Amino acid sequence: MNFVVFAGGVGGAKLSHGMARSVGAGLLTVIVNTADDLEMHGLHISPDLDTVMYTLAGIANPETGWGIAGDTFGNFEMLQKLGMQPWFRLGDRDLAVHMTRTQLIKEGRTLSEAVALLSQRLGIESRILPMTNDRVRTIVDTDEGLFSFQEYFVKARWQPTVRSLIYEGAEEAEPLPQAVRAVETASTIIIAPSNLYLSIDPILSMNDVKDALLNASAPIIAVTPIIGGEAVKGPAAKLMRELGEEPSAAAVAEHYADFINGFVLDERDAHLKAEIEDMGVGVLVTDTLMKDEDDRARLACEVVNFADQLRPEKLGGCRLDQSALNAGADDSKLPSDVQNP
Amino acid sequence: MNFVVFAGGVGGAKLSHGMARSVGAGLLTVIVNTADDLEMHGLHISPDLDTVMYTLAGIANPETGWGIAGDTFGNFEMLQKLGMQPWFRLGDRDLAVHMTRTQLIKEGRTLSEAVALLSQRLGIESRILPMTNDRVRTIVDTDEGLFSFQEYFVKARWQPTVRSLIYEGAEEAEPLPQAVRAVETASTIIIAPSNLYLSIDPILSMNDVKDALLNASAPIIAVTPIIGGEAVKGPAAKLMRELGEEPSAAAVAEHYADFINGFVLDERDAHLKAEIEDMGVGVLVTDTLMKDEDDRARLACEVVNFADQLRPEKLGGCRLDQSALNAGADDSKLPSDVQNP
Repeated sequence: MNFVVFAGGVGGAKLSHGMARSVGAGLLTVIVNTADDLEMHGLHISPDLDTVMYTLAGIANPETGWGIAGDTFGNFEMLQKLGMQPWFRLGDRDLAVHMTRTQLIKEGRTLSEAVALLSQRLGIESRILPMTNDRVRTIVDTDEGLFSFQEYFVKARWQPTVRSLIYEGAEEAEPLPQAVRAVETASTIIIAPSNLYLSIDPILSMNDVKDALLNASAPIIAVTPIIGGEAVKGPAAKLMRELGEEPSAAAVAEHYADFINGFVLDERDAHLKAEIEDMGVGVLVTDTLMKDEDDRARLACEVVNFADQLRPEKLGGCRLDQSALNAGADDSKLPSDVQNP
Repeated sequence: MNFVVFAGGVGGAKLSHGMARSVGAGLLTVIVNTADDLEMHGLHISPDLDTVMYTLAGIANPETGWGIAGDTFGNFEMLQKLGMQPWFRLGDRDLAVHMTRTQLIKEGRTLSEAVALLSQRLGIESRILPMTNDRVRTIVDTDEGLFSFQEYFVKARWQPTVRSLIYEGAEEAEPLPQAVRAVETASTIIIAPSNLYLSIDPILSMNDVKDALLNASAPIIAVTPIIGGEAVKGPAAKLMRELGEEPSAAAVAEHYADFINGFVLDERDAHLKAEIEDMGVGVLVTDTLMKDEDDRARLACEVVNFADQLRPEKLGGCRLDQSALNAGADDSKLPSDVQNP
């Protein structure tokens, strides 16, 4: 058995962490968006890769969604004092990760090799793969002009109105061969509750990735990043509106409908179930909010069991530690509503 | 009136700080060795420039002689954790200075322009000049092979036996024009108590610098870095022995004798006075140890007044704040022994 998660930043990292706990870290491959990578201070910074890496290593800052828990900001404060007007807040320890990655790449390693080495040194058992070792960059076309992704996201705080998104370099980029192979041989593929345009589409926009998904024998399940018409975090709903979509879980399901087998809908959106089933997609209705670590494991386990119901032979479900689930049960979570159309 | 100090690291920084206090920061130009600069993590690091800069800005770490007081080391610790085996200990704030300098140079500024901007942002009134904007690097030829300066100094803790020193690039390097002009127009020139081979000779090894000193109208005073046959700090005495010189203040005076007018000898070496005077060099005997900030100002003031005695017309001596001197007097410092051969 091996499990593949397509992930962007925080939502993808949380579900991946839940997967590592519920199915076993060694069985998990996370394919991560790199189209929001940036170069700054001569450093190669990979925000989504780092969020996944820090989360799986158990060192992520739970308050910010980025960076390392307990990190200090002496460097950032000094850059400010020196008049550099830094707009991308890097912690002192976080910076060391960027310095190490940049050094490894300068020494001739690929990004994926650098990530493997960093993961190993951080004690991560799961396999974290950048979507590609080539350069793909999301360019945001807005009413205020073109922005690089991080300028749009961090500097402009995603306030400009978006007209379109360009995944620069995606057509020429070679998706990471190990990632394509992981999709081909997966027993379950999960599209994390990440931003569909900013995190997942850049991965899908590369040649062969969509084909690999369409040809995959494993059930493919997408988890909604939208609850009650709003994004759990970030600009997903705002972007959907600006790009002419209705910001709803159903629109997300529609967006993925040609290649997913199942969709995980939040219980607050249960009324959309039939609409999504009409797309030929199985629906699991459950609490998709991951407020704590037990939520992550519980949701991951439900998604894995849901996938099991969408294939001819069951694989035995997830191996979630029962003590973790019991801790979750104290929050009086309802049994999930699993249905197969 | 303008005062020029040739400086390396800690000793040069301390005397420069004393000069800034005693003659007025705005009248001071410090010409700093850059032959121990290094590139690390893609950053341009200038240890001697930074030591002078931090000291004049009042933010130097008094315990280590390098780095910024109160700096944190989260970055360094994380690099260690990531297996990078960093051997050059950079504080988080210190790192911000290297990032800023590197960024400014990448944007097309020269090293001297970057230093000017950094100095301004740190509130430094004195003028700090790198000896050149070109690349000069001290290579240390030892019984264990060739070392870059910092590998010899930091990594090998200056333990290998030195056979010779090579100032790579010095012949092709253009000394900073402002530095040459400062020497030509100075009213007093001071060679700081820095390592003669590692800090001062790299500056002197560039074309035009020695000529400018030989043609300078200002008195040129060297302050001994050797007391009682030992270096106040660092490998100066060890190097003298290895390079076949007797490690003594007299040998330092001899080393500079062709261009200096005066030599400041420590009171513990008063017996060497006649020997140095026989070289045709005036001698000031005083306490040259700079244990605290008042020592720096007192020594600087004595050096300035000594220089005044070595020229036809006096310039009025130094403007040391008397309250500072009085604080120093509590340590029962003796009046200095000023003599002109």
